[in-house]
Amino acid sequence: MARPSVREQIVDAAFEQFHLNGYNACGVKLVTDTAGVPKGSFYNHFASKEALALEVLERYAASRGMEALAEDDTPPLARLRGHFEFLAAEAAHFGYARGCVFGNFTTEAADHSAPIADGVRSGFATWTRAVAALLREARTDGSLPAHHDPDVLALFVVNAWEGAVVGARAAKDGSSFTAFFRVVFDSVLA
Amino acid sequence: MARPSVREQIVDAAFEQFHLNGYNACGVKLVTDTAGVPKGSFYNHFASKEALALEVLERYAASRGMEALAEDDTPPLARLRGHFEFLAAEAAHFGYARGCVFGNFTTEAADHSAPIADGVRSGFATWTRAVAALLREARTDGSLPAHHDPDVLALFVVNAWEGAVVGARAAKDGSSFTAFFRVVFDSVLA
Repeated sequence: MARPSVREQIVDAAFEQFHLNGYNACGVKLVTDTAGVPKGSFYNHFASKEALALEVLERYAASRGMEALAEDDTPPLARLRGHFEFLAAEAAHFGYARGCVFGNFTTEAADHSAPIADGVRSGFATWTRAVAALLREARTDGSLPAHHDPDVLALFVVNAWEGAVVGARAAKDGSSFTAFFRVVFDSVLA
Repeated sequence: MARPSVREQIVDAAFEQFHLNGYNACGVKLVTDTAGVPKGSFYNHFASKEALALEVLERYAASRGMEALAEDDTPPLARLRGHFEFLAAEAAHFGYARGCVFGNFTTEAADHSAPIADGVRSGFATWTRAVAALLREARTDGSLPAHHDPDVLALFVVNAWEGAVVGARAAKDGSSFTAFFRVVFDSVLA
């Protein structure tokens, strides 16, 4: 296997460190130290820490398992449950720490950085659209009652998930996820 | 009116600056500069920035209008709606920036500071208990169907609100709150 480029090593390290410590608590030096590359090499590859944050956001979005939401042989609401079970297992794996990078960057940087604000808005919008498409499919096949508005419901469900991540992180247990699955799948979507 | 003490000036400034800029982006110097007091005076009043954060959390909790959730002549679910309308109006007033201090401190500090983790856990727990008591009242008077578990539902609703705050902050509009009110009051609690 080819050795990862310095650029890749920096993105790998930032992906880990921004998630672990937060964007504002993690400087370029911590990223380059973690990557094992000289601090001076950073600006050969990135114009700013903000530019690196956008790459981390893109990579994080690609790791959310959103492709599992797309139409296949599994019934839509089972696919939606599987998607959130995947995310809940990841949160448990990290001891309910770290949170969601979309939510973290929104909290830490979206009020102060226009590019990061665009990045999180676009990340949430892509995710919400994928959930809405799935809910539209569920409404068509009759598994979701016809009175629901798929766009409103998708926005609500994605936000409720983000809030459950915050609740789990505060309590350091999975009770917020348990409440999410019970209320969303037994009540909201039933 | 008596002049506010240096201690109060510091708490006032931190309340504003932590909310505006975040906990990690805001150092002791920014707080004392905002307060108009010498940086050296800080440690006469607080052992650490973390100790100040706990005071800010307490003051924030006291400003959440939680007393409006307690039993009175208004029907319980109308009181719950009024509570979240109060919070939504505040978020709109701040242009959907700043977020919720409970959620912000959870995101920025709960993985790294045991006292702040205790503070946010306790803040969320107090709020969730107040919502659960209201939902229990609603179940007793028949306005909430009997099959609901008030504790699970309260945790879900508080988290869904936190997530809506994140969604509003990312989008810089109120659509996440609109979705929250529609789904929670017309579907979850109906």
